[in-house]
Amino acid sequence: MATYLITGSSRGLGLALVSRLASLPSSVVGAVIATSRQDNSSRLRDLVNGSSGRVGFVPMDVTDTKSLQEAVVNVKDYLSGRGLDVLINNAGVMPVTKGGLEAMDNLNDTFNTNVTGAHQVTTAFLPLLRQGDRKVVANISTTLGSMSKSSTFESMPVPAYKITKAALNMLTVQYAQAYAQEGFTFLSLSPGWLQTDLGGSRADLPPEIGAEAVVDMVRNATTEQNGKFLNIRVPGWEENPGFNQYDGKEVPW
Amino acid sequence: MATYLITGSSRGLGLALVSRLASLPSSVVGAVIATSRQDNSSRLRDLVNGSSGRVGFVPMDVTDTKSLQEAVVNVKDYLSGRGLDVLINNAGVMPVTKGGLEAMDNLNDTFNTNVTGAHQVTTAFLPLLRQGDRKVVANISTTLGSMSKSSTFESMPVPAYKITKAALNMLTVQYAQAYAQEGFTFLSLSPGWLQTDLGGSRADLPPEIGAEAVVDMVRNATTEQNGKFLNIRVPGWEENPGFNQYDGKEVPW
Repeated sequence: MATYLITGSSRGLGLALVSRLASLPSSVVGAVIATSRQDNSSRLRDLVNGSSGRVGFVPMDVTDTKSLQEAVVNVKDYLSGRGLDVLINNAGVMPVTKGGLEAMDNLNDTFNTNVTGAHQVTTAFLPLLRQGDRKVVANISTTLGSMSKSSTFESMPVPAYKITKAALNMLTVQYAQAYAQEGFTFLSLSPGWLQTDLGGSRADLPPEIGAEAVVDMVRNATTEQNGKFLNIRVPGWEENPGFNQYDGKEVPW
Repeated sequence: MATYLITGSSRGLGLALVSRLASLPSSVVGAVIATSRQDNSSRLRDLVNGSSGRVGFVPMDVTDTKSLQEAVVNVKDYLSGRGLDVLINNAGVMPVTKGGLEAMDNLNDTFNTNVTGAHQVTTAFLPLLRQGDRKVVANISTTLGSMSKSSTFESMPVPAYKITKAALNMLTVQYAQAYAQEGFTFLSLSPGWLQTDLGGSRADLPPEIGAEAVVDMVRNATTEQNGKFLNIRVPGWEENPGFNQYDGKEVPW
């Protein structure tokens, strides 16, 4: 009967996460709140309409504190007394920098969405998360945010994404330390290289597989994992010779 | 006869770096350009005035692209045909967050100074650095930006500093990859816990000792160190039982 909130749900991994959660029995998933900046995703609307009230949509811009305040009121209303068990900070951007690193002019904007956005959402929903039983917050990160693995991803021209996801990992660590005593589990999760608008068509996995693996990680998350940077686990991909091994293990920072 | 540019030189480590460089023989240090946002440091003015023209002051706000463009013109003028050998991105802020992580409201501002600032300065001075013989860029980082060492620094209420310095480390890695073939050496350097306005009076080392160690690292930097996160080396402090061991070794990310 756990309750979930997913940011950036209009497409890609966010949409796939909502879809996966909605497919699980109501004994496992009590309610899913899908949020996104704009209410313009017909696929998300279909999911909400076909969910018999189990999936709710709440508009929310993670970079806008007024929008967040309104969203909290709407989510509280939707949960009608229940707490929020799991928050998945999935909203994010990955701008491609053309013309080399010298041309990177989007660091502040990318940081505002990918890091400050996750911080503001987490802060806004802390009261509802404290009322939840699970107290799990998953920040969607990426192995591209790993300094240790940086040579693997050298050819990918998304420096602002890599830099801000490294920062997001430290945000996860800061939250993990600050709220460990209250029983929270904060995770940085790498969801795999997915065939989404963000990942492109050459990616390893359909978004459904990544979403299923992320949901598995979140459902099985324990307080021992608090503050860790974890890869998804996909059977058959544990020893993938490509960029990523989906082995469910810790990613080096 | 190497030429140096230091940002954030009005006080603390930046001022100590300028002072240390100015104390070395002119056969080793040809020129030092001290930059800072405001020309209000009497100690820096004394250094410049007592340097027989070997230390120059150039006003520069690392967050202001117009100021940077003007600074590049002034530095070029000062160097009169010489290249810039070493850039030390030292300007940075460390705001204390009171009231717990939930109260952190300075992420974007801190990132803009500590990360985007370093990026903008590096980009602006790349043409002069390409004309230099050393091609060394040192980004002043901190062990507080290490995820691996985060438990050591849990009690220090400077989350925005920690998060943005982790991001700065990934910026260093991105630059190291992008300009390795041109012979550049980009370093993230932890200058030690210094008795400055930023570090406080309980810190391990006087700023002069930290500055001497940073200058040693920069002078001895090799292309094999490109993209690494290094601690300073201070004799007698290699096995310090406190927060930091100043052993000159790599810091885990």
